[in-house]
Parts: sequence; C-alpha cells; structure tokens
Amino acid sequence: MAPHKPGELFSVNARTLKPSAIEAIHKLLEEPGMRSLAGAWPDPLVFPTAEISKIVVELLESLGDSALQYGSTRGHPALRRALADLAESQLGARITADQILVTSGSAQGLDLACRLFIDPGDVVLVGLPSYFGATATIASQGGINFGIPLDGQGIRTDLMEDALRTLHRDGSRVKAVYVIPNFQNPSGITMSLERRRELLDLADRFQFMIFEDDPYGELRFEGKHLPSLAALDRSGCVVHFHSTSKTFSPGMRVAWVAAQSEVIDQMERFKQASDISTNSLAQLILLELIQSQKLQEGIDRNRAHYRRKRDLMLGLMGEHFPDEVDWTRPSGGFFTFVTLPAQMSGDDLLLDALEERIAFVSGSAFFVDGGGLNTFRLSFSQAEGADIEAAIPCLGALIKKRLADRN
Amino acid sequence: MAPHKPGELFSVNARTLKPSAIEAIHKLLEEPGMRSLAGAWPDPLVFPTAEISKIVVELLESLGDSALQYGSTRGHPALRRALADLAESQLGARITADQILVTSGSAQGLDLACRLFIDPGDVVLVGLPSYFGATATIASQGGINFGIPLDGQGIRTDLMEDALRTLHRDGSRVKAVYVIPNFQNPSGITMSLERRRELLDLADRFQFMIFEDDPYGELRFEGKHLPSLAALDRSGCVVHFHSTSKTFSPGMRVAWVAAQSEVIDQMERFKQASDISTNSLAQLILLELIQSQKLQEGIDRNRAHYRRKRDLMLGLMGEHFPDEVDWTRPSGGFFTFVTLPAQMSGDDLLLDALEERIAFVSGSAFFVDGGGLNTFRLSFSQAEGADIEAAIPCLGALIKKRLADRN
Repeated sequence: MAPHKPGELFSVNARTLKPSAIEAIHKLLEEPGMRSLAGAWPDPLVFPTAEISKIVVELLESLGDSALQYGSTRGHPALRRALADLAESQLGARITADQILVTSGSAQGLDLACRLFIDPGDVVLVGLPSYFGATATIASQGGINFGIPLDGQGIRTDLMEDALRTLHRDGSRVKAVYVIPNFQNPSGITMSLERRRELLDLADRFQFMIFEDDPYGELRFEGKHLPSLAALDRSGCVVHFHSTSKTFSPGMRVAWVAAQSEVIDQMERFKQASDISTNSLAQLILLELIQSQKLQEGIDRNRAHYRRKRDLMLGLMGEHFPDEVDWTRPSGGFFTFVTLPAQMSGDDLLLDALEERIAFVSGSAFFVDGGGLNTFRLSFSQAEGADIEAAIPCLGALIKKRLADRN
Repeated sequence: MAPHKPGELFSVNARTLKPSAIEAIHKLLEEPGMRSLAGAWPDPLVFPTAEISKIVVELLESLGDSALQYGSTRGHPALRRALADLAESQLGARITADQILVTSGSAQGLDLACRLFIDPGDVVLVGLPSYFGATATIASQGGINFGIPLDGQGIRTDLMEDALRTLHRDGSRVKAVYVIPNFQNPSGITMSLERRRELLDLADRFQFMIFEDDPYGELRFEGKHLPSLAALDRSGCVVHFHSTSKTFSPGMRVAWVAAQSEVIDQMERFKQASDISTNSLAQLILLELIQSQKLQEGIDRNRAHYRRKRDLMLGLMGEHFPDEVDWTRPSGGFFTFVTLPAQMSGDDLLLDALEERIAFVSGSAFFVDGGGLNTFRLSFSQAEGADIEAAIPCLGALIKKRLADRN
C-alpha cells in the first residue's frame, strides 16, 4: 500500500505554522545540571501543594463523583461568581459572573479570542518585544503580528496611531492589539496610566479590540497597583485574560477571560467546539482556595518570595555586568530584559552561556519584526538563589569577554 | 463613549457558528426532577473516586510540586509509553509513544486535527446520523459536513464511493471522514470488519484521512472485539482519538490521539498554540490508574454495569413500544437509536416527554442533511434504573397516543 502523505492535505495555517520557542526552552530546562534563567515558570516552592492535597480529599468526599463529571462549558457557576468578586476587588473592574468564561489556561483564552476575531490576513498589533506564545497563537489562526515598539511606559501609542493610519490606508484590517500591561513578558515593563488611557482611546477611535493579558498583575513587589484596562474600559473593547498559573498552579490549567457578554457568549461556543469544558476538579480546587483565602495568602507569600529573587538578580547584575549593557528594573513579575551593545548578538551569547550550562532566552524570539538581536530575557522566577548567584557573574564575564574580543 | 460593536469585528467562522446541541442538553440535565435519557455522560457511580483521592495524596507527597508544574505539550512521557502499550494490547495497533499526543479531552484531539487538515470549504464525510459535537467542531473550522447514510454495518461505503466521485468531479476537496466505529454515537451501531476494510481502501484510493473516534470501544458487552481502523491501517491514513471520559472521568479531560509522526508533530504545535499542555495532575492520576491495573478493573466493572442498564432499557422498550417503532440493539456503549413511523416527529415527541419530565435527544440534531426528523436517541448510561423503569413505559404511551391521534 502506498503510504499516505498527510502533508499534502494540510491546511493553509498548518503549512505556515512554525515550532514555538516554548518547545526549545522546555528541552533546555530538562537538561540535567542546567542553571536556567530561561523559563517563565513559577517557582514550584510557592505552590500550595499540601493545601491542594487536603482539598482534593475533602472535595471527593463531600461532592463525591460530581467533581469528576463533565462541567459546564462556561465554567463552574460558583467559581465564576467568586472570580467576578475577585475581579472587582483586585482589578477594580465591575464584571458579572456572566461575563466570565473559565478557560484551560489563559493561552486558551487568547486562542478562542483569535478564533472569534481573526480571519487569515487580519492584523493584530503587538509590542516589540512580545510574549512569543501569544504571537504564535495569533499566527496559528492566520493573523499577522504587526510590531509596535515599547518604551519605559509600555507600548508606544504615538507610533501605534501612525501605524494604524498607514495600515488603514493600505486596506489592512486591524482587529486587535495584544498587550501585557503589568510586568510585561519579556520586558518587565509596566504600562503607565496615561498610556493605558491613550490605548483605550485609540481602540475606540479605530474600532479594534484590546486583548489584555494579565498573568503577573498580582505579583507587584512595590508601588501602586494601576487600574487594569478592563477597569478603565468604558466602551466594551477589552478582552481581559487572567491566568492562575503564576499564583496557583500552571499544571492545573485554570484561567478565565472577562469581556462583554456578546464576546463571552461566542467564545463559549468556540470553547465548546474546542475542548467542551475545563477540568472540573481543578476548578473546584481553585474555588476552595479562593473561598478559604488561601489563594490570597499564597499570593502575598509569592510577592515577597519573587521580590527577594529579583533583588538578588538585579543586585548581581549591577555588580557584574559591564557599563555598556542596559536592563529593565521591573516592579513585579518574573523578568528583566537586557540590551547589549548594538552589534553584540544575544544568540551568540546564549551559545557561550550554554557551554557554561547557563540558559536564558535570546531576545530575537520576542521580536516579530526580526529585530532585538542584541537583547535577551532573564527570568528570576524559577531558578534557585544559588543558581542565580552562580549564573549572573558568569554571564557578566562572558559579556565582558565578547566586548574585549571586539575591541 | 460610543459602545464597541465587537460583532462587526467577528471572523467569518464566528459569524456562521451555531450554538451546539450540547448546551441545550446540559440545561435539560440540570433541571430538577428531570428523568434524563439525554446525556452521553457516564454514570458517576463507576468513577474510581476513592482511588483518585488516594492517588492524589500519594502523588503530591512523592512527586511534590512537580505534579503542579507546566508539563510538556506532547504529554507526560511515561503516560505516553503506558498508553502506547495499552493501544497494542487493546486496539491491536502498533503505536509508539512518539506517535501519541495527550489532549484535553478527545474533543480537543478532533479540534486540532481539523486545524491541521481543514481549510474553510473543505469537506469532511460524516455519518447520517453523527455525533453533533464532532460536526460542530468541523463546522467551527469552516469545514463542510457531508452526510453518508449508515446501515446496520456502519457507514455505507458504497454510497461513500459514489459521493466521492461526485464531490471530486465538482472540485470539492474531501479531506477526511469522521467515524465512531464502535457503538456509534448516536446509533449504537458497530462498523463491521468488512466495512472497516472498505473504508480504509477508499481512504487510500481517494487520499483522505480517517478520523477514528473511539470513546466507547472498551465498553463492549458481548461478542468479539473488532480491530480498530488504526490497527488495520497500512498506509498511515488514520488519526485515532481515544477518550478516557467514559472509563476514567470526563471532568479530568485527559484523552489521546495516535497517528503517524508527521501528523502528531504538527498537531502538537497547534496544541502548543491552543492550551500549551493538558492538566499535569490528571495525566499523573491516569498513569497511576493504568500502572496499578485499576483502570482495567474499572472498565470490567463498567461493562457489567452498563450491560445491565442496556438490558433493562431494551427489555422495557420491547414491552412498551408499539410495533411501528424500530430501534438498534447495541453490543456496547451508551445508546440505542429509535426510528418512529415516517411522519412522526422526534421534536414533537420530545415536547410531549418534557411535559412528563422525561428528556432525550431528538434525532434531528444528528443529521447534517436536515433529515432524521422521525428519530431520537436514548441513552442508558447515566439514568438510574428506577428512572429508566419509569421513563420507558411513559415514552411508549406517548408514542402510542400520537399514533392513535394520527389514525
């Protein structure tokens, strides 16, 4: 029998799909003896493991088998009510339980939003740099990622306005902008209040959606919490994605999306067609963690934990990195983003570092315009203190060596 | 601020997306006092609830936090090895761990396969009748469901060949056929060995994929297990979807897909873009259930349990349904499919039944060609014996009344 050639039957989107950088990073993380500053993974030390174990036993005893049955596609009703309350207290956003859809990770939330809004060739504006998981999801639906530079205040709304005019004139359909306003992945930059207002204003004037991804917002180490775009939204243009992967457990794959009802209703239908419902037991565990205040207590502990790691890393970078190198000083989250001198390559530095069993993510993965070649992302979230203490001085020495070789 | 009108930004697929029949059924199931023969839900009585509770405690103690961390997109390596072994012993299919992708329910498996193969306008052949969740997923990707009638041997390969010639002549691109060969949802019909071979032959001659959905295959009550299409496949045309929702827990959302490596590699990328990975804890629980033989023991108990329910329902139907009505006698699975006299409407009968607090699914939901108006599906899986005993005589009386009213 002649072998089938499935590749000849692939869809247009499948033919253009590229492997995500996430795969390569996972492989790096699995290598034994690697000091990894690469992953955007939370520190497993802060997972409420003992709590979860206790909750599962109690849930399966009290709710019995119903905890293992199919759940509703929209999400467990009591959990959606609890999440709506949290949204009001934490984000300042008035969201009803009906405006919430529980998703299998916030990656799924973005995927469903793309299925809802993006036809092949439609444009989504993204930061330069941007989280590559999101740009990969947008591309997987045939969407075009169009990069807008960031500065210390977040995405450059002035340049965005210019781009919007040009794109509209050229007949491109701009459907959305994708942003992480708090402690952005990879830059660590937080969008200023003024920039948030300008972005909302642009969305209303040019009629596009704002995809607000907020996995790190609760992990603020210092300074005042800024209102989310969802809270500032007056016209219903924001689709807000909220992960629990950094504050509860990424392996449990529970997240939620909030948006106006028309959007959530239709996203629910795509979710129905996509995986029917999110893990029932994981939803019930999260509900119990919220109701018992354990989630909030965990977040408070997490903040202190990650702040110490950030301080350790930034302190060592100040000590060991040469003056020619610049980096961001995040007020929360997991990352600092490093800019090398213009002609120095992040990819080349990574090769040097891997020889020393140190991993990070080269910046090129985050720039949809092919730029950022002299940048890289360092994550302080998952590595142990000792690894950070060993890796940063070594990285500093490798950079200095490359600088010296140039001169 | 003028309100945003997201509907004007919706994608083409979103504009044509219809609410799935699953939503309506879930709402019926939630109504208090309803005797439901509607859902394709397993009986929660057979869930290994106590086992799962014990396993979670042990897992979180022994593996600690890693059970809650992100997992690999392809699926937990040890679980994929265990599933490959099961596939060999149960399906007779030689599948390596590399040819397996763990998915969040087999609904996700089908969704990913559609993303991989289906461009808007591409044709997927489906049975008349067919599981509406699958046809909804195909449609959500812009695929065209083209119906081929079933008989007692499964999908009519002779009519399929005629349809393929016509479709090819008309320039339609037929990418796949979607079938449930064992105890089909909704008909309960099992595809004969000869029909399986004919289907594989057609797939090779006309170069399309076979999407083999097998959620019920392990729940055979009597007779000889037939080799799966995956086991008979010599050319690599089969994508095999395997649920654990009927044998472990639907709420845990763990399933797997097996296909040739080129297909699995690309489906993995779509999964990466779609939800990153399947719940880690649920995968580890399933692995432990397989390794301890508890999954297999549970399946053996399930078989006996569902066989008793089927016998109860079919026995009562024979007693109480009039001669003008016909129905299938499944050798496994969850369903029997009822055919009323030609002019009698399943939708109308459902309205009568709902007034008596009895729910089932009217056949029209399963026919992509608008047919099947005089049919309906009865599920014996979830209802308690007492509900079946009360519902079937009542349904029989309602049918007789409609017959009498006609005469």
